[in-house]
Amino acid sequence: MQRYFVELSYNGATFFGWQRQPNQLSVQQEIETALTKLNSNILISIVGCGRTDSGVHAKQYFFHVDLDPIVDLQYYLFKLNRILPESIVLHSIVTIGDDFHARFTAKSRTYRYYLNTKKDPFKQGLSWLFTQSLDLEEMNKAGGLLIGTKDFTSFSKVNTDVKTNICSVSKAKWIKVDSTNFYFEITANRFLRNMVRATVGTLLEIGQGKKSSESILNTIEAKDRGVAAISVPAHGLFLWEVLY
Amino acid sequence: MQRYFVELSYNGATFFGWQRQPNQLSVQQEIETALTKLNSNILISIVGCGRTDSGVHAKQYFFHVDLDPIVDLQYYLFKLNRILPESIVLHSIVTIGDDFHARFTAKSRTYRYYLNTKKDPFKQGLSWLFTQSLDLEEMNKAGGLLIGTKDFTSFSKVNTDVKTNICSVSKAKWIKVDSTNFYFEITANRFLRNMVRATVGTLLEIGQGKKSSESILNTIEAKDRGVAAISVPAHGLFLWEVLY
Repeated sequence: MQRYFVELSYNGATFFGWQRQPNQLSVQQEIETALTKLNSNILISIVGCGRTDSGVHAKQYFFHVDLDPIVDLQYYLFKLNRILPESIVLHSIVTIGDDFHARFTAKSRTYRYYLNTKKDPFKQGLSWLFTQSLDLEEMNKAGGLLIGTKDFTSFSKVNTDVKTNICSVSKAKWIKVDSTNFYFEITANRFLRNMVRATVGTLLEIGQGKKSSESILNTIEAKDRGVAAISVPAHGLFLWEVLY
Repeated sequence: MQRYFVELSYNGATFFGWQRQPNQLSVQQEIETALTKLNSNILISIVGCGRTDSGVHAKQYFFHVDLDPIVDLQYYLFKLNRILPESIVLHSIVTIGDDFHARFTAKSRTYRYYLNTKKDPFKQGLSWLFTQSLDLEEMNKAGGLLIGTKDFTSFSKVNTDVKTNICSVSKAKWIKVDSTNFYFEITANRFLRNMVRATVGTLLEIGQGKKSSESILNTIEAKDRGVAAISVPAHGLFLWEVLY
């Protein structure tokens, strides 16, 4: 067997997230089904670089898979893309060592959350419409306070099966694209379930002046999901970059 | 009564075109319903700058409407946008003379048809995936032969109720956005039903080498819809600009 490493993008709108699960359409299942077809119907399992929730997009995503050696990688990629729906596109496939793991070898992940403050019929499903005025400067002050190695329990769905809620955030910044479009970019070594969407919701409360930028320190300190704001919708969120 | 002139955009994906019709969701009906709500439920009718088919988008569209004088136009626009779905956004409303007509006063219309040659999950519904290689130069040669005042019967749906099929095309050009994205832009004083999509289909046959660029002259001459190629799908098509 040979291990292969695949880069892809997907539009999460029609999927119940990355992870395969019974009776729900997932990105993982679509790809495993396509690979299985090209593998004489012998079941193939793949390992993704992380989970994304229902409706979340991935501009950059990676998985690894062990397969019998492929003779023509480019042609194999072409055939896979033909089988897969338009919402999933594989960009590249390379051979890689068996010690490489799409999830555990990854050093950092970057997410973006896109907001538009004016209705835009051509951004539907790829950006969240939020028409209230925001103080980006205050939001960036609060974003700066997220940076570091901290316990992000307040921004995590409860009862997830992780051992620790400590994450190292290295970037957390709002970027203005133009007068009506902006995004939040956050980079960390790992993310907890729902963490980006709860963080964005909390920063939006600060941007609206409901809370001070410094209040985010108390929110972190509380280690209680009830203290942070509600999560923003999935369709503005993109897994943007994964570094190895 | 005062006549108002409104600029808007819409995503056509969920609509059976601009034109109101029984038992089908149309852009016109959505807007008329919103205006009627703001008008003490007295029925309002609007006049659009043209019809767009089911699934076709409009980057720029105009309608006119006669209403009791509005005191605060900006607030009125704000309220309308709040009622309308995210797929329809009104950009501006201005007062205009009674002799002005959104459809008949329009001097030219420009359409764009977007193609992507590589799968792109974030262009779904806004560009048509066409993976075969194309000779853009030949397509532009043929495009140039469309320019002028000609009978476009070969590119029109039969049995439409127009008096003449003569249109004056002033621009017909393929533009390369990047290595995998391009669009066809066509400007004319008027368009026949299905004309842009049949034209694009015909130019794609030329781009694939199935026909010569000069063959488009015979296609025009034939005045027979059966001679031109099949129409491309609606979701790549945008009404792009209307000039008055």
